[in-house]
Amino acid sequence: MNAAPLSGLYAPSLALVTDLYQLTMAYGYWQQGMQDREAVFHLYFRKAPFQGGYAVAAGLALAVDWVENLHFSDDDLAYLGSLRGSKGGALFPTEFLDYLRQLKFTCDIDAVPEGTVVFGNEPLIRVRGPLLQAQLLETALLTLVNFQTLIATKAARIREAAGPTDQILEFGLRRAQGFDGGLGASRAAFLGGADATSNVLAGQRYGIPVRGTHAHSWVMSFEDEVAAFGAYAKAFPDDSVFLVDTYDTLDGVRQAIKVAREMRANSHELAGIRLDSGDLAYLSREARAVLDEAGFTATRIVASNDLEENLITSLKQQGARIDTWGVGTQLITAYNQAALGGVYKLAALRKADDSGWDFTIKLSEQVAKTSVPGILQVRRYLNEHGKPRADMLYNTAAPLPDQLTIIDPADITRRLAIRPETTFRELLEPVFRAGQRVRELPTLADSRAHAQREVQSLDPSIRRFLNPHTYPVGLEKDLFDYRTQLILEKKPVRGA
Amino acid sequence: MNAAPLSGLYAPSLALVTDLYQLTMAYGYWQQGMQDREAVFHLYFRKAPFQGGYAVAAGLALAVDWVENLHFSDDDLAYLGSLRGSKGGALFPTEFLDYLRQLKFTCDIDAVPEGTVVFGNEPLIRVRGPLLQAQLLETALLTLVNFQTLIATKAARIREAAGPTDQILEFGLRRAQGFDGGLGASRAAFLGGADATSNVLAGQRYGIPVRGTHAHSWVMSFEDEVAAFGAYAKAFPDDSVFLVDTYDTLDGVRQAIKVAREMRANSHELAGIRLDSGDLAYLSREARAVLDEAGFTATRIVASNDLEENLITSLKQQGARIDTWGVGTQLITAYNQAALGGVYKLAALRKADDSGWDFTIKLSEQVAKTSVPGILQVRRYLNEHGKPRADMLYNTAAPLPDQLTIIDPADITRRLAIRPETTFRELLEPVFRAGQRVRELPTLADSRAHAQREVQSLDPSIRRFLNPHTYPVGLEKDLFDYRTQLILEKKPVRGA
Repeated sequence: MNAAPLSGLYAPSLALVTDLYQLTMAYGYWQQGMQDREAVFHLYFRKAPFQGGYAVAAGLALAVDWVENLHFSDDDLAYLGSLRGSKGGALFPTEFLDYLRQLKFTCDIDAVPEGTVVFGNEPLIRVRGPLLQAQLLETALLTLVNFQTLIATKAARIREAAGPTDQILEFGLRRAQGFDGGLGASRAAFLGGADATSNVLAGQRYGIPVRGTHAHSWVMSFEDEVAAFGAYAKAFPDDSVFLVDTYDTLDGVRQAIKVAREMRANSHELAGIRLDSGDLAYLSREARAVLDEAGFTATRIVASNDLEENLITSLKQQGARIDTWGVGTQLITAYNQAALGGVYKLAALRKADDSGWDFTIKLSEQVAKTSVPGILQVRRYLNEHGKPRADMLYNTAAPLPDQLTIIDPADITRRLAIRPETTFRELLEPVFRAGQRVRELPTLADSRAHAQREVQSLDPSIRRFLNPHTYPVGLEKDLFDYRTQLILEKKPVRGA
Repeated sequence: MNAAPLSGLYAPSLALVTDLYQLTMAYGYWQQGMQDREAVFHLYFRKAPFQGGYAVAAGLALAVDWVENLHFSDDDLAYLGSLRGSKGGALFPTEFLDYLRQLKFTCDIDAVPEGTVVFGNEPLIRVRGPLLQAQLLETALLTLVNFQTLIATKAARIREAAGPTDQILEFGLRRAQGFDGGLGASRAAFLGGADATSNVLAGQRYGIPVRGTHAHSWVMSFEDEVAAFGAYAKAFPDDSVFLVDTYDTLDGVRQAIKVAREMRANSHELAGIRLDSGDLAYLSREARAVLDEAGFTATRIVASNDLEENLITSLKQQGARIDTWGVGTQLITAYNQAALGGVYKLAALRKADDSGWDFTIKLSEQVAKTSVPGILQVRRYLNEHGKPRADMLYNTAAPLPDQLTIIDPADITRRLAIRPETTFRELLEPVFRAGQRVRELPTLADSRAHAQREVQSLDPSIRRFLNPHTYPVGLEKDLFDYRTQLILEKKPVRGA
């Protein structure tokens, strides 16, 4: 076996996009007769990426799509049936594979809408339903939400650095982690704040505007830069951006201006030039001066070359005259932190005799990393201007006390008493009920607009890159106390 | 538009997995009548990833598959036809789209086989054929080869740290950059030296062994660890690896031993335990002692938790008793360097009057980064033990002199004279001729075995992680001199 047809994920079923242990546990639950015990899992990350103060939730639409198409095809089951244990016997008995064949998805799913700003330890997705099914969703949900949230957040940071009016073009496909890594990142980058992509498939699939200039090879295929630029202008008289650094950047700008003059004589305008190497602060200032002096004040300056939010901030501080940022590797892979460590933890399990819930925790050496038991909701309290003030996790399976206090589990002395009149919204919204979708998802463009409003609603101290202020997120006091009690019960008592 | 069907790359055509500028340039070449001018491009990276001394070439089989399936479907062309320029006119005229519709691939492709060790500035792929076609391949070839080579190299380094007999399990899917990021990385990780994956789809698609343990949620779904381990052992009596750190690691080991004793009474053996947190050096030594004392000397100890080559090296130096390494995020994303900066550069173009070749270069501020003109081959000279001694790039379109000298373009005083009797092999092998495949590709397992032999053939000083020795790679002297002359011709002369 070697390359799968068409190199990638060309599969009528994506049920096998999972870790083997989801299937071995599923078999174990089925064998124990536990497959239909009602369970609750939460998907969350512990720390916002890039040492930042927030993240932009993303990936829900892809996750919904995966869930709605979840089924085990005959090919899937034939493969699972072919797996052998170390003693040579079938890993999974036929009866279990028949069970998977007829499995129908019946879970409830609640989720934070795409584009919403979120913080560490807040459930982005809550799955409630039969234990076996809810467990089976883990890997795919994590893969999609971790990556989409990571890239959307990176794009939001790059937007923060570029400011509201500069254009951000994502063109990282060649450095992406596979075709779908590129496609998915283009989607998330647009959601988080990019204006356009070079990825044509992303344009077709998601309706993202596509943009491009030309490569050095274009210039090298002609006698000189004037010939190359002239030929490109002939093809795209109103949409040409000339790459000027094949031989010498400022010399290239002068050649571009020669062609731009001819274009203007024919009632066309040079749209832009692109700088792809060298000192972008210096070169962009020089290029701007030369263009302006020649009367090409509307010609845009596009820059590329390993750009990311800190470099863009620095270039702006140096007075760079760049108005369009071409961002590749650093955005498409979230290069400086290439993964978000989201997890999916069991938090409640219906008792075997159906007499109520057992709430469950996973301990950790650090108490802040210990999971939160319950059937959780996130309530976002707003200040008098309608801006986020603090988030509270609470257990929807227990009554809320009249006087609400939020406790930061990482610092139990950090507490916030909530005045009764404080307005709030609940972040987790119903998406599936008993396996049926109950919510239309917004378009990608609407999620993008939501993301921009959400990020802008945060105080600048939370949005800044260096040592951002920590937005208050905590547990409602009853939940906090209950969790502490559960930890003490589960932890072996050590003598000293 | 929102989620594409089945979340990912479920497409009958992958021709649009490209940057828009490949298509705008294609239109420009077509408009100029240059579409069939014969061109030569090389795909190469400049520096081995991870500050390492080598890379393991990978991705060719996926690239071949993409190329063989390359065609523009009606949907693709309809989308391209729908694109508009800034003045509202069609970006591409219908005649050009018709040209794309009937386009047949006719290029020659030569490539380094997967699993071969390669170094900076060496072409991994050489494409020769009609300019328009050769240009169109750029993005997809780069995406596939950059990512596969990156991950295969990371896996080879992890294999180097783990040693030849320890098992390496790749289980990073949940942190992968999308479904296909995970699938592709599983493939490349296996090629580079991993033994198995948790990714079931990768098992099905590529025949990679699949492995798994169980999650914390399994333990949390039972009354206690003994009940959880017992139930898992019932499902997989000869293939159970118990995760012991849900509450307290060493306590978990003792619970595992209780169940292992019952298993042994029924003629089954506990395959392993897994440690997923805490001080893995200390905990593995303690766990080994407890297991050995109880008579479970064959029970393996699996460790996971952000492992990578440096941490594995350190754990081994600390006497950790780990024999199976579960590697996730750090391998699946090549976390500490999440992209390989491979490029695709035009190096030769047939003269318009067909009287010969124009060799082309892209200048850079740093001469070492300037591209190499010619129709290149890489010759690997071997020492008296058949091990790599030095690599020489030369232009196949020029005669080789009798006395061969290799010059390092980054340090022109670093030269190596080749004795005539020195044995060598040529790295680039024919894969396509006139658009037809002329070579069967090896199986993935064969490429994996080739990779292990290749890495082992390198001197340990080149394989080490810290400040590895630089393997000698240079230009044949005639090529070096010709390139220098071209640079001087192209560079604007500045006064001072």
